[in-house]
Amino acid sequence: MTQPLRLGIAGLGTVGIGVVKIVKQQAELLSARTGRKIEISAVSARTRDKDRGVSLSGFAWEDDPVALATRDDVDVFVELMGGSDGPAKAATEAALKAGKHVVTANKAMLAVHGQALAEEAEGAGVNLRFEAAVAGGIPVIKTLTESLAGNQITRVMGVMNGTCNYILTRMESAGLTYETVFDEANALGYLEADPTLDVGGIDAGHKLAILASIAFGTQVDFNGIEIEGIERISISDIRHARDMGYRIKLLGVAQMSGRGLESRMSPCLVPANSPLGALEGPTNMCILEGDSVGQIVLRGAGAGEGPTASAVMGDICDIARGLKIATFGVPADQLVQAESARSAVPAPYYLRMELADKPGALAKVATILGEAGISIDRMRQTAHNESTASVLIVTHKCTRDSLDSALAALPATNVLDAEPVALRIEQV
Amino acid sequence: MTQPLRLGIAGLGTVGIGVVKIVKQQAELLSARTGRKIEISAVSARTRDKDRGVSLSGFAWEDDPVALATRDDVDVFVELMGGSDGPAKAATEAALKAGKHVVTANKAMLAVHGQALAEEAEGAGVNLRFEAAVAGGIPVIKTLTESLAGNQITRVMGVMNGTCNYILTRMESAGLTYETVFDEANALGYLEADPTLDVGGIDAGHKLAILASIAFGTQVDFNGIEIEGIERISISDIRHARDMGYRIKLLGVAQMSGRGLESRMSPCLVPANSPLGALEGPTNMCILEGDSVGQIVLRGAGAGEGPTASAVMGDICDIARGLKIATFGVPADQLVQAESARSAVPAPYYLRMELADKPGALAKVATILGEAGISIDRMRQTAHNESTASVLIVTHKCTRDSLDSALAALPATNVLDAEPVALRIEQV
Repeated sequence: MTQPLRLGIAGLGTVGIGVVKIVKQQAELLSARTGRKIEISAVSARTRDKDRGVSLSGFAWEDDPVALATRDDVDVFVELMGGSDGPAKAATEAALKAGKHVVTANKAMLAVHGQALAEEAEGAGVNLRFEAAVAGGIPVIKTLTESLAGNQITRVMGVMNGTCNYILTRMESAGLTYETVFDEANALGYLEADPTLDVGGIDAGHKLAILASIAFGTQVDFNGIEIEGIERISISDIRHARDMGYRIKLLGVAQMSGRGLESRMSPCLVPANSPLGALEGPTNMCILEGDSVGQIVLRGAGAGEGPTASAVMGDICDIARGLKIATFGVPADQLVQAESARSAVPAPYYLRMELADKPGALAKVATILGEAGISIDRMRQTAHNESTASVLIVTHKCTRDSLDSALAALPATNVLDAEPVALRIEQV
Repeated sequence: MTQPLRLGIAGLGTVGIGVVKIVKQQAELLSARTGRKIEISAVSARTRDKDRGVSLSGFAWEDDPVALATRDDVDVFVELMGGSDGPAKAATEAALKAGKHVVTANKAMLAVHGQALAEEAEGAGVNLRFEAAVAGGIPVIKTLTESLAGNQITRVMGVMNGTCNYILTRMESAGLTYETVFDEANALGYLEADPTLDVGGIDAGHKLAILASIAFGTQVDFNGIEIEGIERISISDIRHARDMGYRIKLLGVAQMSGRGLESRMSPCLVPANSPLGALEGPTNMCILEGDSVGQIVLRGAGAGEGPTASAVMGDICDIARGLKIATFGVPADQLVQAESARSAVPAPYYLRMELADKPGALAKVATILGEAGISIDRMRQTAHNESTASVLIVTHKCTRDSLDSALAALPATNVLDAEPVALRIEQV
């Protein structure tokens, strides 16, 4: 049997402790499966004295994660601190420079600094692995990078923020407003300290940036993603969508169009009877489409101690078995900078407008849509209160550009009572 | 860049030609992703002169797959002939002995000879990979062997025969009998030459045997699987199941109980609103459950040129990248021989009996169930014709042993008009 594989773990929150538990409790299984002992040499966290429910005796302690990352008795630096910059980035860079493999769950760091880190890892001849960074326990990174290596990837999609999916499905099932469910989720501790990371689509956007890079051989480009959160989704949008056979999901989509890489994270309508439409609660789902394989759907827990630690352990076992793979599937110096194309692929859209209830209001809206070349598939007007009316429109397929020009022209009509809601209907 | 990886492909049916196409058409992508050129040195098939829609010029031809497998210019033998024995096995053994890696889609060969072949591969220090053997394009072998390496697997399940799922869902959607849809499927060329392989559950049983071995570190044991086909499922079973919120699927389940390894491939009732219940047509689904990860659901095409070739190419790319892994996840000499336990885990069952329509018939059945310790959750009697009545019973959880003793006692009552149908209700 080869030498043991020695870990240094920085960050002892839920996931870090989950990893410690697996290494301790499944020692025999891990060594049978990888042909090596997997051991923890040292750990690091912000606070040393804290009951974490598992004994850390036998592991060296480092206050400084950089010192941990570069220890002689560490082969793999396991970065579970989080944050795109600061200690996580410093320690990851130090580990790579020192020729250590790195396993991380840090989507923000990879979405922002992925290209530079991949170059460092490949320069040093080590692996930088991050299955846990995207969709928790779901093996989406491995599937995309390895299983589908013979495919030209045509589209990747995903519901990758469990909190948003919880909020949207709870609004529907309990008939509660966004604000009420948001407060519930906050009280349950489901939301990040800065909730915009969740409900604003940023966390899920980080994940999509990583997937898009692997799928299309492009440099990871978080800034190229169109991001829209779920804050403006009302219970009436959810109900109208349901009546038409759809559900609303915060959906990430990346695909290559003639104009460039189109990647967006936004609330979309998807068919209620599709796997995405049937996804309830905090569960995550990733959909990968390739020219040979067709469509692969992966579903599982996107967060939590066990699932995330499972993904981290998968990466560690790969390294123990001797895996050698470029960070984003192709060598970092071959990743191209993609043109990011704003929603080039046409789609039908769902529009909700609150119109002043006066003669000719609807005609003005219809005229503006027609002038933008947008034809209407279905339309419904519901009385709202004495002075305004809700108008719901499902368009035929149109480009986002046409839609935007129509939306830009609407305020001048003076018939809108609030900013319109426009949601893409994604073909899944 | 390292030396090219040179393939010898035996079997030029749908999948073999799919692999040839990918190697030719995606050459640039494959070499960017693996760091090596992937080339075809030689091919072999039963008939040489046949238009296969793709040029084979530039590849050497071998009539004998054994000769192909041992050529000096072949690094990876790609076995796509099929059949548990005969040329496929002879050529695979020859390749392994000659120190060639083997990639195969041959579930029957692995289910029957997997242990011996794994020992040969590991003795020779080469890889024997078979992602395409189970559930086509779905990356279930990789997920189980690699992504979930940190998990104690608790249960694996799958709908892994697309033809059976097509038949069952078509019976429901079109309201047709089993016999009619069977004939349709046959006319469409969906069935194997020996249809028992499909509708008798044998093909899917081969796949389950492979999954169980990886999941539980046991020697592959096809004979230890309880297999029951879909031949006795009637349209009325499907309708009754639907009325109660279930769908009927040919479902493979493997789990370790206190009594041993329980693995069965049989028609089961699953909740209609679960991912399994919602699975329509020939699509496949695998569900993997681990102590850390919880439940992972994988869905995709289980057959066809593109999906199967995609899985073969994933294995080839892994080998090009230098993957080194034991065939069934742990070294073959550490795989244990599991006791196979006949359905030890209790479950509720669905029973349909055709009873002679005479006084006391139902009482006799109820008495026998009660004597076997089986309590009834729901019961429904529907008039069938003048002399018999259909009785449907959903039991509370019971063991298969209790159920079998009740079923064995029933004929003596002389109230049965046909052999009862008993289907497990699987908790998914």
